[in-house]
Amino acid sequence: MIRFNSDYLEGAHPRVLQRLLETNLEQTPGYGEDEYCARARRMLRELCEAPEADVHFLVGGTQTNFTFLSAVLKPWQGVISADTGHIAVHETGAVEATGHKVIALKNDDGKLDARAVSEYCRLHFSDESHEHMVMPGAVYVSNPTEVGTLYSRRELTELRETCDRWGLILFLDGARLGYGLASPENDIDLPFLASVCDAFYLGGTKQGLLFGEALVLCNGALKRDFRYMIKQKGGMLAKGRLLGVQFEEVLKDGLYMELSRHAIRLAMKLRDALSGMGIPFLVDSPTNQQFPILPDALLDRLGRDFSYATIEKVDDAHTAVRFCTSWATREADVDRLIEELDRLLKE
Amino acid sequence: MIRFNSDYLEGAHPRVLQRLLETNLEQTPGYGEDEYCARARRMLRELCEAPEADVHFLVGGTQTNFTFLSAVLKPWQGVISADTGHIAVHETGAVEATGHKVIALKNDDGKLDARAVSEYCRLHFSDESHEHMVMPGAVYVSNPTEVGTLYSRRELTELRETCDRWGLILFLDGARLGYGLASPENDIDLPFLASVCDAFYLGGTKQGLLFGEALVLCNGALKRDFRYMIKQKGGMLAKGRLLGVQFEEVLKDGLYMELSRHAIRLAMKLRDALSGMGIPFLVDSPTNQQFPILPDALLDRLGRDFSYATIEKVDDAHTAVRFCTSWATREADVDRLIEELDRLLKE
Amino acid sequence: MIRFNSDYLEGAHPRVLQRLLETNLEQTPGYGEDEYCARARRMLRELCEAPEADVHFLVGGTQTNFTFLSAVLKPWQGVISADTGHIAVHETGAVEATGHKVIALKNDDGKLDARAVSEYCRLHFSDESHEHMVMPGAVYVSNPTEVGTLYSRRELTELRETCDRWGLILFLDGARLGYGLASPENDIDLPFLASVCDAFYLGGTKQGLLFGEALVLCNGALKRDFRYMIKQKGGMLAKGRLLGVQFEEVLKDGLYMELSRHAIRLAMKLRDALSGMGIPFLVDSPTNQQFPILPDALLDRLGRDFSYATIEKVDDAHTAVRFCTSWATREADVDRLIEELDRLLKE
Amino acid sequence: MIRFNSDYLEGAHPRVLQRLLETNLEQTPGYGEDEYCARARRMLRELCEAPEADVHFLVGGTQTNFTFLSAVLKPWQGVISADTGHIAVHETGAVEATGHKVIALKNDDGKLDARAVSEYCRLHFSDESHEHMVMPGAVYVSNPTEVGTLYSRRELTELRETCDRWGLILFLDGARLGYGLASPENDIDLPFLASVCDAFYLGGTKQGLLFGEALVLCNGALKRDFRYMIKQKGGMLAKGRLLGVQFEEVLKDGLYMELSRHAIRLAMKLRDALSGMGIPFLVDSPTNQQFPILPDALLDRLGRDFSYATIEKVDDAHTAVRFCTSWATREADVDRLIEELDRLLKE
Repeated sequence: MIRFNSDYLEGAHPRVLQRLLETNLEQTPGYGEDEYCARARRMLRELCEAPEADVHFLVGGTQTNFTFLSAVLKPWQGVISADTGHIAVHETGAVEATGHKVIALKNDDGKLDARAVSEYCRLHFSDESHEHMVMPGAVYVSNPTEVGTLYSRRELTELRETCDRWGLILFLDGARLGYGLASPENDIDLPFLASVCDAFYLGGTKQGLLFGEALVLCNGALKRDFRYMIKQKGGMLAKGRLLGVQFEEVLKDGLYMELSRHAIRLAMKLRDALSGMGIPFLVDSPTNQQFPILPDALLDRLGRDFSYATIEKVDDAHTAVRFCTSWATREADVDRLIEELDRLLKE
Repeated sequence: MIRFNSDYLEGAHPRVLQRLLETNLEQTPGYGEDEYCARARRMLRELCEAPEADVHFLVGGTQTNFTFLSAVLKPWQGVISADTGHIAVHETGAVEATGHKVIALKNDDGKLDARAVSEYCRLHFSDESHEHMVMPGAVYVSNPTEVGTLYSRRELTELRETCDRWGLILFLDGARLGYGLASPENDIDLPFLASVCDAFYLGGTKQGLLFGEALVLCNGALKRDFRYMIKQKGGMLAKGRLLGVQFEEVLKDGLYMELSRHAIRLAMKLRDALSGMGIPFLVDSPTNQQFPILPDALLDRLGRDFSYATIEKVDDAHTAVRFCTSWATREADVDRLIEELDRLLKE
Repeated sequence: MIRFNSDYLEGAHPRVLQRLLETNLEQTPGYGEDEYCARARRMLRELCEAPEADVHFLVGGTQTNFTFLSAVLKPWQGVISADTGHIAVHETGAVEATGHKVIALKNDDGKLDARAVSEYCRLHFSDESHEHMVMPGAVYVSNPTEVGTLYSRRELTELRETCDRWGLILFLDGARLGYGLASPENDIDLPFLASVCDAFYLGGTKQGLLFGEALVLCNGALKRDFRYMIKQKGGMLAKGRLLGVQFEEVLKDGLYMELSRHAIRLAMKLRDALSGMGIPFLVDSPTNQQFPILPDALLDRLGRDFSYATIEKVDDAHTAVRFCTSWATREADVDRLIEELDRLLKE
Repeated sequence: MIRFNSDYLEGAHPRVLQRLLETNLEQTPGYGEDEYCARARRMLRELCEAPEADVHFLVGGTQTNFTFLSAVLKPWQGVISADTGHIAVHETGAVEATGHKVIALKNDDGKLDARAVSEYCRLHFSDESHEHMVMPGAVYVSNPTEVGTLYSRRELTELRETCDRWGLILFLDGARLGYGLASPENDIDLPFLASVCDAFYLGGTKQGLLFGEALVLCNGALKRDFRYMIKQKGGMLAKGRLLGVQFEEVLKDGLYMELSRHAIRLAMKLRDALSGMGIPFLVDSPTNQQFPILPDALLDRLGRDFSYATIEKVDDAHTAVRFCTSWATREADVDRLIEELDRLLKE
């Protein structure tokens, strides 16, 4: 069985694991107050050209999302998200469990449109009974989105302007940020994100680490006492250095982006091959998640040797599925998948 | 200014206030453990033909909704509501503030369709990642709905069957229940509600009392320790007898329904008159809230002497508004409103 | 049965009820946006000499406590309270239910000592693992306290200084504030409270109203969007004018303090009489709650005609109980209680 | 610098890391649904002689505590803990953040006495206003406790009986469980724990793993839907197999207990040596945490080469500190610490 159903199928890049091995028996202070975390923080601040930013390492994405959002929202505020947003769909109500509504607006290819956000806010604040409705307090976007699409520099700039106009915090979920930055369609970089977002995170779990997300707090007003929140929400790893060691290793000489480019190259190869076979896509994704629409009969047979994620029935005889590439994907496996699809289509 | 914008413009029916006056200086135990509450509970159980039901008196509707829902939902469950439901729109995220997602399904004339609920549950539980999504745990319906429509006996029976099938609690918000029961289109009664719902409440605030909602817990499994929850959520009135005195007065000889019929008679008079003038309605409401669509120019002039609630812009020149009647509405005022509308339309 | 067990046994002062009757059929806007509330707010601001303060009317004390505290505390902060504080003991964990720890410090005659607060904060912030402990964010005091004692001007000034030093919000629960202000031992007034507290409330429920508490937000930074919070927590009464009408009536010509003085005069009469009989007290209370320690055998017989609240067993044969006076207490009833106690003691 | 301040200073036992290395590039399903987790679960059930138990792997201890407690407590219930309990002191109010009060009872050498729990419950339920107080719903104990002491079989049996009597859930935090089981004073084992507790966990973070806690749900009524809760609270690791691989490795041939015995042998060596020098202890601990009371002057000098945790000032010139041993402690380092203390004491 060759698996393409997600981008967290393997452990960590060998260099990351090697580094954990080398440092394994060192004694360090706990809770992220060690030298490895300090260096990884410094590197990330430099990459972001944000010397004033605070960087925190958390274990997972859901945890990072609800820890940050519940820290910055007022009790009567909610967070605006695309209705396809991870917090709106796939986190078991983690944000609501901290007391805040996820205000789901209709997505546009997985993205949130600045005008839709602005219109929502205008309607909210002009309503006589606005105090009877959840006040919008933040905007959550994922980049790449859950369907693999990317925000452009212009789109994020417009969201920033909208947030400024309505007093909203802009938060970007970068669980797959590297795969976004490595895409041929990408036009943003870390310094831009650090300037446009109040906070964002650089994913590790899906990007070559065993686990870990690096949260960058750019807005100075949000920094204070944040470690209390991480501890309360269960995100403060006792052996915090495990996060520092891993991030240091992938950041120190460009490994993070190198692995990202690898995944993107294979994803584009897969996309182009499938397009060439005339296979349609649910959405046009320039990143490591591809969503082809395939005949159900074909999928039954494909499933004997290849795993994929089922997304949705498109019609009576077709289903949209997801294939992911990652830092760990072998080109030979992509080639075999392409061959098999080609073969099955021709039968 | 004659006000039609809501059904809580006045205080209480004079008989209710008179009864508060007569009992004012009596000394009673607090927190609802007095004889007035005991009698009102008994009356309501009899009206519901539900001798085993528990009855609790709370101060307001939002409070009743979030107190009940947060008491019965598991931490990982949410409540399904029409997207027009009061808890989904107009309670400042009170349910989410207790940690639970409001799962908003598209409304059908303000109502929740049993098939839509069932399909949602089917999709949820058949999804491989259902543990990553909020589990549906309860269904919230309002009757009359927020747009004045009514559930039929058949519709509620279907919802009950759906709830049984998927393990959901069925909760009915009856903030305006009397106005529903008094409608010419109504085909349900209190004993039916007590048999079909796990819990529901009979509104007082909009139905002739100063304030107060009577929550009927029909499902025995939900009764235990509920008073702890009322206290914790701020709904346990120190002078609980104020609620008992008021409900006893309106329940003891049919005053509650008499007042409800009064409001409905005037609402139907208004509806018929407006229909006769060719005015369209946003929704066809058989209860005390009427939603005509009127020309903006007319509304400007109408607003000098009559208040109404603005609902939504329908097109560039028309707006849907709400007129409410209530136990306190004077027929002469309805007549004046009709005359004025007629006059303004003819100008 | 003559009841002395609490100070919320009766309804409202007749003038208050009369005023509700007079205004009953007026039509007003809801949710506290009416003229009665506006006038009552103005009066209270004037009495407090705090023209900039915001005043909100809520239904009950528990509700006011958790609504305010959960609005102002950061998610990782708790509130310091005496271990006898109402929020620490008798609100079914309402504050914790909003996510915040009540940090209970040992009381000193029901009061919180500024030095104990300061020492707690000093220890917290000097601890290496302070991020692993709940950060103190506010101080909650009741005046009069739950055992009837009073804070002096000096004590509150010291608490203010302590709060300033450690960045804490000072919140005063005045559910029985009138009974405190009317005490012969009192040395504070409303303008002082408005200057020393970030927020406090003037109780209505126990002080001559049917129900209602008037929250005064003195600290400008805490005012913003507070009405959202009241709505979310179920404290925004649809017919908000009921609160305005009642507070206006008791505030407009000194009725509030007149009723308070009445209760205190009778409480002092009772206290002096019991002291004269050699009865000891659990605590020396200068307000409307008195806590004599009585022989159990006597209490059995007293209980046939008089109700009291049981506080705690003091030894095998004695129990501390509570007698409350209030605006509604009749002097003849106090005289009868004194006579009966005298008679039973001499048997 | 040789560190003795905690038992999570190093990474993982080399065999654990080696196993992560060997399995690193395998592709497995995520979220704990892989074969490694399945095998580790099976092993733990066998070790517990509890074939019906559910086993879940979470990342950290604070996370495990609040995830379990918030899943099983009713909204109006709190959890009873010793006032030294980790949840009461060192988790930044994580349990309160989920809405539940931690009811802190006075500890007895770090332990909770069954009689104290029973008396608290008796007082609660016999109080007239028990509905105004948080209902006790669970009992939390740590074994070993935060001060290194152990519950005996008799003590846990008494707690179980008390919990049965008052309807409480018994939960045991075993973050250092191996160090308890390996103690010469221990008289319990895993099958006993599985029979006496509703749930408990076997710690990994402090016991030779990189991270991870194995929660054993023994009470069948608590199993349902628990994975939803783990996901919502951020504890469901994407690459869940990392937990399975680690636990399998330490459980498969007794490594877990072997490492525990190592730590205990060195702790006892240290304890005996210090006792022999006449050094008093804050508490008599038979496990891997030792709390000697040392002269402040000595500590200043000791601190140049050895790290320790400061616990509390005992008098003007002495401080209680903590030395921890662990699976990773080298005997030579313990010997050097003993020598240095001996030398400094003789100066």
